[in-house]
Amino acid sequence: MFAIRDFFKSARDAALAVAAVLLFAASAQAQNDPLPSWNDTAPKAAIVAFVGKVTKEGSPEFVPVPERIAVFDNDGTLWVEHPMYTQLTFALDRVKALAPQHPEWKDTQPFKAVLEGDMKTLAASGEKGLLELVMVTHAGMTTSDFQKVVTDWLSTARDPRFKRPYTELVYQPMVELLAYLRANGFKTFIVSGGGVEFMRPWAEKAYGVPPEQVVGSSIKTEFRMQDDTPALYRLPEVNFIDDKAGKPVGINQEIGRRPIAAFGNSDGDLEMLQWTTMGGAPARIGVLIHHTDADREYAYDRDTEFGRLDKALDAAAITGWTVVDMKSDWKEVFPHQ
Amino acid sequence: MFAIRDFFKSARDAALAVAAVLLFAASAQAQNDPLPSWNDTAPKAAIVAFVGKVTKEGSPEFVPVPERIAVFDNDGTLWVEHPMYTQLTFALDRVKALAPQHPEWKDTQPFKAVLEGDMKTLAASGEKGLLELVMVTHAGMTTSDFQKVVTDWLSTARDPRFKRPYTELVYQPMVELLAYLRANGFKTFIVSGGGVEFMRPWAEKAYGVPPEQVVGSSIKTEFRMQDDTPALYRLPEVNFIDDKAGKPVGINQEIGRRPIAAFGNSDGDLEMLQWTTMGGAPARIGVLIHHTDADREYAYDRDTEFGRLDKALDAAAITGWTVVDMKSDWKEVFPHQ
Repeated sequence: MFAIRDFFKSARDAALAVAAVLLFAASAQAQNDPLPSWNDTAPKAAIVAFVGKVTKEGSPEFVPVPERIAVFDNDGTLWVEHPMYTQLTFALDRVKALAPQHPEWKDTQPFKAVLEGDMKTLAASGEKGLLELVMVTHAGMTTSDFQKVVTDWLSTARDPRFKRPYTELVYQPMVELLAYLRANGFKTFIVSGGGVEFMRPWAEKAYGVPPEQVVGSSIKTEFRMQDDTPALYRLPEVNFIDDKAGKPVGINQEIGRRPIAAFGNSDGDLEMLQWTTMGGAPARIGVLIHHTDADREYAYDRDTEFGRLDKALDAAAITGWTVVDMKSDWKEVFPHQ
Repeated sequence: MFAIRDFFKSARDAALAVAAVLLFAASAQAQNDPLPSWNDTAPKAAIVAFVGKVTKEGSPEFVPVPERIAVFDNDGTLWVEHPMYTQLTFALDRVKALAPQHPEWKDTQPFKAVLEGDMKTLAASGEKGLLELVMVTHAGMTTSDFQKVVTDWLSTARDPRFKRPYTELVYQPMVELLAYLRANGFKTFIVSGGGVEFMRPWAEKAYGVPPEQVVGSSIKTEFRMQDDTPALYRLPEVNFIDDKAGKPVGINQEIGRRPIAAFGNSDGDLEMLQWTTMGGAPARIGVLIHHTDADREYAYDRDTEFGRLDKALDAAAITGWTVVDMKSDWKEVFPHQ
C-alpha cells in the first residue's frame, strides 16, 4: 500500500539524492577546473576547446608535444602596466637613488625632470630622453650586479594604488592559464618589449617561466676577464627591441619554432599574433586581453599611451582572435583578491 | 667420504658459478652503462663523478634541476668539422646550384673560384669573401624557404671521405653524453659559431636538442605581411657572431643562466668554458675534445685553420678542464661503426 506520507518521504529522499549528486558534481568540477578564476564565458570555452583539440591524439588538429609553443606578452598581459610600465618606475627610482653620485643631473634633462617629479617635461623628452634614462640606469655594470639591483628594488617597491609589490600584481587567471597549458604539454614563453634581464630574475617564481624561456628587449653586453674572473658588462647600446614587428623576429631568433598560441593586449602584440595564427597550421589561437575593468584594475584601449589596443582590436574582429573582456570574463584579477 | 673427483667436480661447479656471476655482472654493467662508447679512462670517470655530485640531494655540490644547464659547441664537438665546416660545404654547393641564375659569377670573385674549385683563391678572398658567399647563399629568402633548402641539401649531400650524410657523422660518445645528462635532469643546449638556422632543422633528430635550445650565429630577419601571409625574410646583414667572446654573450642573451657544464673543442670555445667554470659555483665541469685520431676521424690541434685548439689547450692544463683524447678515450667514434 502506498500512502501519501510515503510518497512525500520518497520524493524528499529523491530530492536529497539529486541535490547530493549536483553538489558533488559541482564540487568535483570546481576541483578539476584548471581555470577557476575565469568565468564560464566564451574566452574560457575557446581556450579549453583549443587545448582539447591539439592534445587529442588521432585528431586532425593534434599537435605533438615539442611543437606546443605558447607565447605571452608581459606588460598588460601577465601583470599590470598602468599607469606606467613597472620597468620605467624602476628606472625613475634608480635615477633618484643614483642622483647623489651625479650632481650634474640637477641641471640636466631628462634627469632634472625625474628628480623634480616633473612628468610633463619628462614625457616631452620623448624616446630619446627615455633611452638616456634606460642607459644610465640599466648599463655600466655586470649582468649579475644588475640582477641584484632589480631583485633588491622589487623586494621594497610598492605599487602606489594597490600598495603591493609589483610581482603580486600578476593576473591570477593568466597564472592559471600558464600552468594549464604546461600541464597539457605546452612550453610557455614570455615575449615582451620589456628588458629581458629585468624580467628574468622574477619570472620563474611569478609565472613558472624559467629564464631561458623569456624573450625580451636587450642592450649589448661584453665579455671581460678580470683577475681570472669572467664577467659580462652591460653596455649603453641597444641590442634588440622586442616589440611590434620585432616580436616575430625575437621568437624566430630565440625559440626557432612558430608558436601555436599567442597572448597579448596591445598593438605591440599585433605582429606576434599574426605570425602565430595566420598562414600556418590549422589549430592556432590568438588571444587579446582587453582592459575593461576600472574598478578592479584599469580600463583603457584605443586612447591610451602605454599598451594601446587599437589596430590589434580591429584585426581581432577580422581574424577571429579571442578577446578577453577583463570585467566580465575574469572572476578574479589578482592572486590576493 | 670426499673423493678427489668430487673435489674437482665441486671446484668446477664453483668456478662455473663464479664465471656466471661475473658474466652476469659484466652484462648488467654494460646494460646500465649510459656511456658505452666511452672507454673507462679518466674523462668518463670525471664526467660521471661530476653528474653524481651535482645530482646527489643533500650534498654540498647539489644543483637543483632548473640550474642544470649544459652547453655544447657543435662543429668538432658534436660532429665532424674537417676538412671544412659542413656549413661552408653547403654554401659552396649552393653557389654551384644557383650559378645558372647568376652568369656574372663566372667572372666575379669569390664566386669564380668556387665554380672553378680553386680553393686557394677562395681562401685568399679571406673573411670578406666568405661573408659574401654566406650572404648570397643564406639570405634573400624566407626562413621557411631556407629551412627547406638546408633539409633538402642534407638529404643528398655526402661527406667525401666517409661517404655518408653529414648528420650521420655525429660523435656517438657525445650523443650518449647528451642523453645521459638529460636523464639526470640537465637541459642541453648547443652554443655554436655555426648559423642557428642551419642547425635547427636537424639538431632535434640528430642530438635530441630542440630548436629553442640551439644558440648560434645569425643574420638579421625582417617581418613582412604579404596577402595576409606573414613571413620572416632573411637579410644580407650579420646579426650576431656566436663565437669566442660572443659565446658567453649568446648564452646570456638566449639562456639567461650560467651553465654548469661546457663542452668544446677549439679556441672558439675558450670564453664559453671560462664563463662556465670560473668564478661561479663550486661544481662545474669544462671539457675539451682533442682530435687525436687520424685513423677513425682526424688529428689536429695547434696548427689547424678550422677548429684550432691552442690557447684553450694551455688554459685546460691550468684550470683543470677535462681533455678527451679521442683516440684513447672513445671506444667508438660514429654511430655506424
